Amino acid sequence: MKEKPLSSLCTPALVVDVDKVKRNALRMIERCQNLGVQLRPHMKTHKTLECADIMTGGSRRCIVVSTLAEACFYADHGFDDILYAYSLPLDKVERCADLSERLDLFQILLDHPHALDELKKRPLRDGRLWHVWLKLDCGNGRAGVLHSQPEAISLAQAIVGTKGVELTGVYAHCGNSYNCRGVEQIQAVAQETTDLTLQFMEKLKASGITCKSSIGSTPSCSHPVKDMGKLSEVHPGNYGFYDVQQSVIGSCTLEEVAVKVLTRVIGHCPHRNQLLIDCGWCGLSLDGAGKLPTGYAVIEGHPDLKLLSMTQEHGQVEPISGPLDYSKFPLGSLLTLIPYHSCATAVMHPVYHVHSEGRLLGKWIPTRGW
Amino acid sequence: MKEKPLSSLCTPALVVDVDKVKRNALRMIERCQNLGVQLRPHMKTHKTLECADIMTGGSRRCIVVSTLAEACFYADHGFDDILYAYSLPLDKVERCADLSERLDLFQILLDHPHALDELKKRPLRDGRLWHVWLKLDCGNGRAGVLHSQPEAISLAQAIVGTKGVELTGVYAHCGNSYNCRGVEQIQAVAQETTDLTLQFMEKLKASGITCKSSIGSTPSCSHPVKDMGKLSEVHPGNYGFYDVQQSVIGSCTLEEVAVKVLTRVIGHCPHRNQLLIDCGWCGLSLDGAGKLPTGYAVIEGHPDLKLLSMTQEHGQVEPISGPLDYSKFPLGSLLTLIPYHSCATAVMHPVYHVHSEGRLLGKWIPTRGW
Repeated sequence: MKEKPLSSLCTPALVVDVDKVKRNALRMIERCQNLGVQLRPHMKTHKTLECADIMTGGSRRCIVVSTLAEACFYADHGFDDILYAYSLPLDKVERCADLSERLDLFQILLDHPHALDELKKRPLRDGRLWHVWLKLDCGNGRAGVLHSQPEAISLAQAIVGTKGVELTGVYAHCGNSYNCRGVEQIQAVAQETTDLTLQFMEKLKASGITCKSSIGSTPSCSHPVKDMGKLSEVHPGNYGFYDVQQSVIGSCTLEEVAVKVLTRVIGHCPHRNQLLIDCGWCGLSLDGAGKLPTGYAVIEGHPDLKLLSMTQEHGQVEPISGPLDYSKFPLGSLLTLIPYHSCATAVMHPVYHVHSEGRLLGKWIPTRGW
Repeated sequence: MKEKPLSSLCTPALVVDVDKVKRNALRMIERCQNLGVQLRPHMKTHKTLECADIMTGGSRRCIVVSTLAEACFYADHGFDDILYAYSLPLDKVERCADLSERLDLFQILLDHPHALDELKKRPLRDGRLWHVWLKLDCGNGRAGVLHSQPEAISLAQAIVGTKGVELTGVYAHCGNSYNCRGVEQIQAVAQETTDLTLQFMEKLKASGITCKSSIGSTPSCSHPVKDMGKLSEVHPGNYGFYDVQQSVIGSCTLEEVAVKVLTRVIGHCPHRNQLLIDCGWCGLSLDGAGKLPTGYAVIEGHPDLKLLSMTQEHGQVEPISGPLDYSKFPLGSLLTLIPYHSCATAVMHPVYHVHSEGRLLGKWIPTRGW
């Protein structure tokens, strides 16, 4: 079959440059090899088998997921050593037990003694162990026990002291690296999270506990500090695709962004000095509002244009300044949006169109739901 | 099978109160009967067969859709008289031709002579006609030819003068009603859009052209003005579900909102005076940012709580003032989010859980994509 060009797609369409994904993934693998740390890539950005194969180098082992639906999807397709890195939701204990009994290594995460109580109530069959990571908050300010609180150590001790449960590791997400601008700031957060995690591991060791350690975020793992080599694992995820946000943070260049949204001009509005495009928030998401001078996205090759606003299926584009030259944008002409946040954009699309140098190779179908 | 309660659902979960949908739909049907205008409900909010059956009173006829994927989905399931109310995208002419040749009545919409040129290049088989609505902008400021521009009349004339093409009607969306607060403002926009559309119909008549007319939006059709009875059709859509935004506009009460997101408490963060919930933007969307004192949603039964921020799978909830009483929100306890914009929230969910008075009846599966 002759490979079709991107321009054969109906729009809006999410397109993935598979060469860039492979380069981004390989670079992360090499970076982790050089550091001497195990890479456990996060699947939440793309949620596809194909991208998981690329990010795991084909091993189908050692991944992180954000939803139980992802965990089941990957388990159903031959993946194993899956970490469901989400503070154990009490409504999903039975489903987690199923996966723990089905896979060689299904791992969960918790940050509260109540969750541990629920595990006690549901011992696994055949003497299997619940593999538990303790979620630590090292300054991110979302989930996790605060690293400085005595409750963090006592929860670790309680996990270790519980029959049928194993403390597999300590897990921290340095999502605060998303506030950074430039490598220096990223590395400061990476260093701080690493230090706090390693200090916590020392405290554990002092009370006779040893286990793995893992930190991660795409910014910190794109510009790791040497001490991250002292950790057992890192768990970035967005880097397979990257996005405008990561380029603003300094994790990547705009050229490394592997995922884009193709859209077409569907209207000329000279009385408003605007173009209408066929991509609204249904094809892009509303993430990034107010963050970029170019609006909700970067329009490739048109730094002078701004995606001003969107409704469900319409986008309104205007020049940052001056009058629009409509002759450059005939009805039906293609524009390429580089998304602000690829996690948010990818989830809007039931299919990703994969290409190499603009020739379509096939489709990736993500999983969804919870 | 014993009907399960809502609390048996894993969260986050989109739940639809089918009794409220039926009441909202019936009230709109009655309102249109009283006005003497044909109701053509829009499917874009829910995109399901079941809700379409309720909104069409079981006729499976006379609907509007926002994407060609919706058009195909409904056509494949026995619906007909479908209006694809989206300025004809030039990349989808062939797919529109297929539907036009397959259905008794597939209707498209355009606002530019170039789109008409494309129709000329693709005559339909068996002497069938392209059924075309002219999209008019009566102050909404998105798609459509401005009602006041001479181009509007000349485009109507060009459509009428084109072999194989029929001018079916004139279509205006009064999306500017979304800026209204209260019935008086809504009715002012409804009146203005109706007046401008009827004036345009008079101008057409003066040049010897008669066709249908249609305006619509959920606010205007929830509080119609008498003159809307002079139109051929109205095309609201959101009213099946309604949402917080519609209650703020004044289209409905908060009690009439039929769609909610169930979420559970997954974390206590006393050092930040916050709760974590298992609904992030992946389960709610980011629509409504900065619009409500209660943040991204209204938390049912807790007017004192605010959904402050969300990441992909986490929401951060805090009191509007004062300290949080954690004893009221144990880990695993349910909260109910009333979405700001049900169109945006529904599209995030691959399945809707349908209930009557809290007893689960089944699932609705929406279509997606373009």
